[in-house]
This record gives sequence, structure tokens and C-alpha cells, in this order.
Amino acid sequence: MGDSVSRIAVLGSTGSIGRQTLDVVRGLRERFRVVGLCAGRNVTLLEEQAREFTPRLVCCDGNGSTAAGVIPFDGFECAPMEAIAADPEVELVVVATAGKAGLIPTLKALEAGKTVALANKEVLVMAGRLVRESARRGDGEIRPIDSEHSAIWQVMRGEKNANIRRLILTASGGALRDKSIDELQRVTPEQALSHPTWQMGRKVTIDSATLLNKGLEAIEARWLFDVPLDRIEIVLHRESIVHSVVEFCDGSLKAQLGTPDMRVPIQVALCYPDRPQLPSVAPLDLRQMGALHFSELKLDRYPCLSLALEAGHRGGTFPTVLSAADEVAVEGFLSGRIGFTRIPEIIDETLNAHDGGSDESLDEILAADAWAREYAETLLGAQA
Amino acid sequence: MGDSVSRIAVLGSTGSIGRQTLDVVRGLRERFRVVGLCAGRNVTLLEEQAREFTPRLVCCDGNGSTAAGVIPFDGFECAPMEAIAADPEVELVVVATAGKAGLIPTLKALEAGKTVALANKEVLVMAGRLVRESARRGDGEIRPIDSEHSAIWQVMRGEKNANIRRLILTASGGALRDKSIDELQRVTPEQALSHPTWQMGRKVTIDSATLLNKGLEAIEARWLFDVPLDRIEIVLHRESIVHSVVEFCDGSLKAQLGTPDMRVPIQVALCYPDRPQLPSVAPLDLRQMGALHFSELKLDRYPCLSLALEAGHRGGTFPTVLSAADEVAVEGFLSGRIGFTRIPEIIDETLNAHDGGSDESLDEILAADAWAREYAETLLGAQA
Repeated sequence: MGDSVSRIAVLGSTGSIGRQTLDVVRGLRERFRVVGLCAGRNVTLLEEQAREFTPRLVCCDGNGSTAAGVIPFDGFECAPMEAIAADPEVELVVVATAGKAGLIPTLKALEAGKTVALANKEVLVMAGRLVRESARRGDGEIRPIDSEHSAIWQVMRGEKNANIRRLILTASGGALRDKSIDELQRVTPEQALSHPTWQMGRKVTIDSATLLNKGLEAIEARWLFDVPLDRIEIVLHRESIVHSVVEFCDGSLKAQLGTPDMRVPIQVALCYPDRPQLPSVAPLDLRQMGALHFSELKLDRYPCLSLALEAGHRGGTFPTVLSAADEVAVEGFLSGRIGFTRIPEIIDETLNAHDGGSDESLDEILAADAWAREYAETLLGAQA
Repeated sequence: MGDSVSRIAVLGSTGSIGRQTLDVVRGLRERFRVVGLCAGRNVTLLEEQAREFTPRLVCCDGNGSTAAGVIPFDGFECAPMEAIAADPEVELVVVATAGKAGLIPTLKALEAGKTVALANKEVLVMAGRLVRESARRGDGEIRPIDSEHSAIWQVMRGEKNANIRRLILTASGGALRDKSIDELQRVTPEQALSHPTWQMGRKVTIDSATLLNKGLEAIEARWLFDVPLDRIEIVLHRESIVHSVVEFCDGSLKAQLGTPDMRVPIQVALCYPDRPQLPSVAPLDLRQMGALHFSELKLDRYPCLSLALEAGHRGGTFPTVLSAADEVAVEGFLSGRIGFTRIPEIIDETLNAHDGGSDESLDEILAADAWAREYAETLLGAQA
């Protein structure tokens, strides 16, 4: 990078990570040129962003994610999201979509040799093996944006994956960590959406409350750092200051920490290996923090996490099904169709009904995903 | 390194760091061949070590540090310490001496293009500029062993010094951190020698109690990482688990942590960039730790630290004089000639009497050192 300008595309530019990505780019105009912007449904904000950043390519697909679904967009060249991800002009693709929307664009970008800054964790959960294979084949590079994975990635600069003894993912415990099991039965979407430390999108905030999110992160870390799941631990850390820790074979540990603000891992991924100033983020003062707490995570409190780790251990299409069933269940909870404690039940029932399959072909993964969504949908209605 | 055997010399092999270095080497026989061992006065232990590791070269100089002072040593080739440090067969020199003894061997080793694993912090405090210049001229490499500097060095793997915003050195507060100012007047050497978290040599343990040690470390860090003193902060951290922290320009922080056991930073320095297993060190379990505490260090409680930082800011031969006066004062305290609170007074009076000088020539540094020792000695007697 250095002095030259990097040409980027932001997929999911109107979501939480997308908006923060453009905020980072706003502070680094001399380094980045926005070539492509893609959004799902928020046409108004996308138009505003397009006027500000004047990308050549714009995509608003109403979440169709296919060429047929692209909505015409006055004054800009419109193209499907996966075409923008693989466009010859684009060097760095920020995948800030949610759910399965980012999967095919990520594969296309990596196959075309792009650098992918990945915030859409379901992509690796659904198809980690394929993503790694696409990166290998196309000589593409993945830089994680998720704060835990960014932490590990930053810690691993200058280190070899083979020297990792354990990865320690920290978990805040989410919005409901202090509620009793009884209270969880009656939790409203509003309560579950008030995360104690992070400002995030709705889906990931609910996943943080159920801690399914931490299970997805463990599966994601397994693919990113080539560490088996049984050497990935989860530790409760209420303050969300230590974003994750790596223990090396010689007993030395390295951690990345900082104010919980996603603009830091976003900028770290965009600017690697540089670290320009990011004045809008408040510096962390450890003396003012006083103490950082760590404790054991009680798995019985978080059935979604156990389900996720189990699906990760089983491998194949089980993580795909986990992720799809969770998307349906969370949407069902947010729209008021099911209660909070029904989320793990729907995931569990869907996983139990799944026969398993290979994660080596995209077709099988997409088929498992479609099947799981349909199956989980029927369970939403089944609640009396 | 990798598969080949690295030929090492251990200077100060009978001291605390020297013995732990040989302990690490014992676990990595296939990687290291001990070519040289040097000690000051402990002939019995040196002989035992020489029989076990069969080095070609041995030096026992009764702390004379010169060719004339070398004590004949049956069955081994004897040479002065600086000749062993620069011997063509030696690749890696562990400088585990204390006080000024390691200075000339370090300079000779770096000028001869060796890798120096440096535990003798006074070397950089006395002559940081010269040491850096010797490393540049001879293409030698310095790897710190001090736990704080090892932490920063580990964190800086894959990072650029130019991206450092601040270095945060952690301080346990030493053996006397909970004593009142009144109680400090009557502290015995035994009390000051019982460090709460680290097992170390006598000199460094007393320096930890006065926190002069932390001032020496700040000066050392300044030379190792090319960061001005006013961007080096000291934070009280009672548990000695987080060994130090680097804050980068983008607001991200990285820390190294682990069980307080010097064999970790020793092995890290010896094996870089590898991280072989070190089974004798107990793994750190953050969940069992419960909490890590950080708070502000009250400078008025630690006059030695203020004196050290001031000497560091003044530069030239002031840090040399600081270090020399401290060696004399600590020896005076340990031998019962002065009380604990007299240590900072002797350092202060010696610094006040010093006219200053350039730190660009070894002669001037050695002259300042000799003058300071003599001056401080007279102050030991002056106490009525």
C-alpha cells in the first residue's frame, strides 16, 4: 500500500460495518478510492453514499444477490454484487454483508486474487473449506474484521500458526448475561438488542445474547488460523477490552486490546501493515479501567453455543445448517413470532433433522442452506 | 536456527538468569551447544556447569573482567569474558551478568556480528547509544531478556517501530508496595528481597523495591525500540501477568502475558522466531486469575524512579552515573551500611555533583562510571 491509492468495494455499505468502513475511508481519503458500493434494501442511504464517494459501480439488489435482482440506479453503472467483488479495478473488497449474502461474492473475489476484508462471519461458518480453497487457488488474501479475529490476526503478525497452542476467544456474555434462566423466557427483542459494550447490527447482537455468535466465531477461527476446534477456548470477559488472546507453545501469551469500537479492526484490515492515526477513537487508559475480569463461561446457560460447537465438531454441512436455522430463528424472534428461548430449540430441531453432507461443493452447501431455512421456517409456525 | 545447532556463550552463568538459561538449554540439547561459560566468583558452580556442558572456553575472573584477572581453570581453555563474547565459534551470547560487567563484552559481541540475548539492563542504561552503534557497525542483533522488554519485543514482531504511539511498562510495585513511608525507614534487606511475583537476583530485587528498576527499564526501552522517554508510561499491575503493552497509532494495543517465570523470555530470546514447548513452565489460566488490576503509579512514593527518569531525560552520562551510584548504594544497603531510604539520597547527591558528559565515547562513559562509584562510596561512609 504505502503511498499508492487502494481501490476498494464495500459490500453491505449501508449496514453497521459498512457505514463504519466508509467512516474510516473518510479519514483516509489519500489512501482509498471507493470503486464499488453494494446494499440490500436501503436505497436512500446507498444513494447518499454514492453521491459522496462517487464509485463507478453500484448495486442495490433488494437482497436478491443475483443479476436479475439488481435495481436500476440513476447515474451509476449497476452490476450484481459478485461482479463488483471480482471487477478488475477493485483491489480490496470489504464484505460487510450479513448472513449468507456475502458467500458467493467472497469466493469470486478470492478467486480473482483480491484482498477480502471479511466481516460477514457466516461466510466462513457456511463454507470455510471452500473459502480457503478459493483463496489458495486465486492467490487471494483474507483479513478478518470481526474484533476477536482481528485481535488474533494482529497478534499473529510475525508469528507462525504452527506455534499456536490455544486460541482464547473472549466473550462479553451479551445483553442478557445477568438475567436468570426464568427471566430469559420473557425477554423482549428490545432487551436482547441492548448489548453492553458493542454497537452492532441486529442479527449479530441477538447472536451475542444467545452466545451462538461465539460458536460461529470459534468455527471461523478454526478456518482462519488452521487451529482445531478443541484448541479454541472461550473465556468470559465482561469489559470487552481484551479482544482475544493467543497462547503459544512456549507458554507465552499475546493479546490485542482496546476501546470496543469496530472502526479499529476495520482500519487495521484496510491499512495492513500500516497503522495510521484514527483520532475519532478514544484511547484506552488501563489505569482508568482499574481491572479486567476473566471467568469461566457456563455452557449450560447458553444452549446455542453448545449447539454451535457441536455442529463445528461434526463438520460437513452441519455448520451451514446451524447458521441458516439461526438466521431464520433470530428473524422469527425479532419479528415477534417466537420467544427468546425458542431460538436454540429451532436450531437444535433443524440440526437433528439434517442428514449431513460434504462441505467441498458449493451446490451441496447451498442445498443444505436452502433445506435448513425451509425446515426452520416450518418450525416457526409450529409454536402454539 | 531451525534444524541446525546454535553455538552459545553464557556470560554470568552462575547468576539467576545464567542458571535459568542453562535450564532452558538443558531442555533443548538438540538446538544449542554451549561453547563458553563465564562467571565472577562462584567457582564451585561454574566447575559443575563446565563438567555438564563441556564448553571449550571458560572464564572465572573474580569479577576482574580483564585478561589479567582470569583464574586458571583446570581442563578448560581460559579466556577473558570479552574474548569469549567475540570468539569466532560463538553465534549467540547470553549476557546475564549484572551491573557494568556486561558492557564491554556486549559491545565486542555486537561488533563481531553476534546475536546478543541481553539480560544485563545496566549495559543499555550506561551506554545505549554506543551499544546501538556497535550493533549497527558490526551487524549484530540484540534480543532483550528482561520480561518487560521481551514482552514489547514479542509484541513488535511483524510491526514497525514507527507505528508505536506509547510503550506501557507494567510494574508490580515491588516487595514494599504496601508499606507506609514511615515503615520504609526501617526496612531490612530481608524484607526488600522478598519480591511478590518474581524470583530474581539480589541487585534487581532491591531495584524493584525502590522502583529504580522501572526507571532503568524505561531508559533501556528507549534504546531498544527507539521511542522517546516521554512516550513511555509506567502502570502499576500487581499480578505481574501482563508483562508490558504497546499502544499503536491506530488505537490498537497489544500485550504479552504469562506466568512470571524468566525461563519464558530466556527461551523466546534463544529460539526466535521459533517457540518450542517449555513444559516446566505452568500454563496461565486467565479464568483462574479472575482479574488483572491496573492503576496509577504514585511517583512521590518512589523517589528512585523519579531520579532515574530525570537522568534519562538529561541524557549524556547522567544515566551512567545513576546506574553506578545505585550499584554502590544497593550494595551499601545489602551489607547493612545504610538504611533503605538512604538509597535515593545517595543517587540524588551523586547526580547533583555530576557535571555531565558525552555518551558517545566509551572512555567518557567509563570515567563517569568510575567517578560516580567513588563519589557514592564516600557518601556511604558519610551517614552518621
